[in-house]
Amino acid sequence: MVEYNTIIIGAGISGISCAIYLKRAGIKTLILENDMPGGQLNKASVIENYPGYVSIGGTELSMMLLEQIQNYDVDLVYDDVSKIDYDKKIITVGDTKYSYKHLVFATGRRERTLELKNEEKWLGRGISLCATCDGALYKEKDVIVIGGGSSAVSEAIYLSNICHKVYLIYRGSNLRAEEILKERIERISNIEIIYEGIVSSYWVEDDKLNGVCLDNGMKIKASCVFLAIGHIPNSELFIGDKNSGYIKVNEAGETSINDVYACGDVIDKNVYQLITSSSEGVLVASSIIKKS
Amino acid sequence: MVEYNTIIIGAGISGISCAIYLKRAGIKTLILENDMPGGQLNKASVIENYPGYVSIGGTELSMMLLEQIQNYDVDLVYDDVSKIDYDKKIITVGDTKYSYKHLVFATGRRERTLELKNEEKWLGRGISLCATCDGALYKEKDVIVIGGGSSAVSEAIYLSNICHKVYLIYRGSNLRAEEILKERIERISNIEIIYEGIVSSYWVEDDKLNGVCLDNGMKIKASCVFLAIGHIPNSELFIGDKNSGYIKVNEAGETSINDVYACGDVIDKNVYQLITSSSEGVLVASSIIKKS
Repeated sequence: MVEYNTIIIGAGISGISCAIYLKRAGIKTLILENDMPGGQLNKASVIENYPGYVSIGGTELSMMLLEQIQNYDVDLVYDDVSKIDYDKKIITVGDTKYSYKHLVFATGRRERTLELKNEEKWLGRGISLCATCDGALYKEKDVIVIGGGSSAVSEAIYLSNICHKVYLIYRGSNLRAEEILKERIERISNIEIIYEGIVSSYWVEDDKLNGVCLDNGMKIKASCVFLAIGHIPNSELFIGDKNSGYIKVNEAGETSINDVYACGDVIDKNVYQLITSSSEGVLVASSIIKKS
Repeated sequence: MVEYNTIIIGAGISGISCAIYLKRAGIKTLILENDMPGGQLNKASVIENYPGYVSIGGTELSMMLLEQIQNYDVDLVYDDVSKIDYDKKIITVGDTKYSYKHLVFATGRRERTLELKNEEKWLGRGISLCATCDGALYKEKDVIVIGGGSSAVSEAIYLSNICHKVYLIYRGSNLRAEEILKERIERISNIEIIYEGIVSSYWVEDDKLNGVCLDNGMKIKASCVFLAIGHIPNSELFIGDKNSGYIKVNEAGETSINDVYACGDVIDKNVYQLITSSSEGVLVASSIIKKS
């Protein structure tokens, strides 16, 4: 059994920010990560909205964060969590058991995608999962947003201020967005809403992404396709209170389970941005430091 | 009259973060600043707890933030606000009047200091206003914390994990800190509490800061003197609900006055860190974007 004061699951910006503050306060901390450090960050080609960096690549920022926790000698284990015993406060990872006093879910979320051919290849290079992150890269260009909820409509409105034309492609016949957003989008002249539009494939020619093809044969040309068809929080291992899969926390980052905290994109909140996730990690660290 | 959608008072990290997000969303924004951009940031010699920078100078990070808003063409006026008309939504700055739809207080706070000779000279180079920011620079050294409230005791405890010895100098005979912190500090062997200690001067010899002198003739040697005698929020121009001078906000960053927001160190909150202030600026921006 390896003993830690705090175990953080997830080495995205939120988990790493939490670890930085914990280690600075002298608290023995382990981060568990089953993929690359940086998490979703690695998918952003260019980040221009992280305060303190005029422009930085996603993987570049990831590497900076990794260097930062290496500097503080944070233990980092790259493996899947196979089991959490919440009563005994033990996490099983492969053949190893780790005990904790405090557990932090910083597991993030993953975007729903269309799961069509070529999608993986063009993600980050013409297919984007975040208008706020990447919109500014498509100034005066034509773009496509896929989705029909508040998030898709917000993204289309956001992009309409930046881009030449925005196609909003939605599979239904009535947008599911909040009323105020629906009223607003109708007044914007450079957004065209395509109802009952089912994307059947990405339109790729000569190794270039041109846009999308609909199942009625229509082709829509654009410089970027923004997917806004929802997210899936990585909260499968968490057994406490959730809202649509997102972990519920209070102001201090505490969940409904004693000594279990959560921060970053896995929590139920209003704004999902790098800087807010980082801040939430620091708030959780601060709560743990007070109790340690 | 110059019209803006949003006017932000204060070009610290919170106001700048807010402006970045507003401008990215195409919202006409003005920042008013009466000192250097970066605010309190400029006082930190080395910052090692801002996620994304292993180590960066305070003024260096300020300059990065300034470059970032210049990149987005945010209007920045360096002057004092002389008057705010909350009914007409007009701010007077010198001879110019600016109208706003949304007003953001990102005015920060200033530390109380001892106001003794040599203080200004050694601030940031042996006199520190933030243990979390600068503590790691004094590993295995002797340090002094001045103050007796929860914040001073927390700083002393925090430093005891990092430093060789911590002197806590308090002018009273009973610490004003929370009970749990008082119990905790008594159990820590490398903290020495000096009660009824009145600092009469900084101990400077041969242009080197050696520690402090008390009014009873005692001299205490240390590598750094941490002042934790409280802060003064820069909220004089705000007329709504406050708590000990700090502006009260809800989750969306809204104050008790319609269309007036606040973020950063001027608000009433638990954690006062660069990253949390930045995040609060983004949350305010997000609230304004939703209404614009």
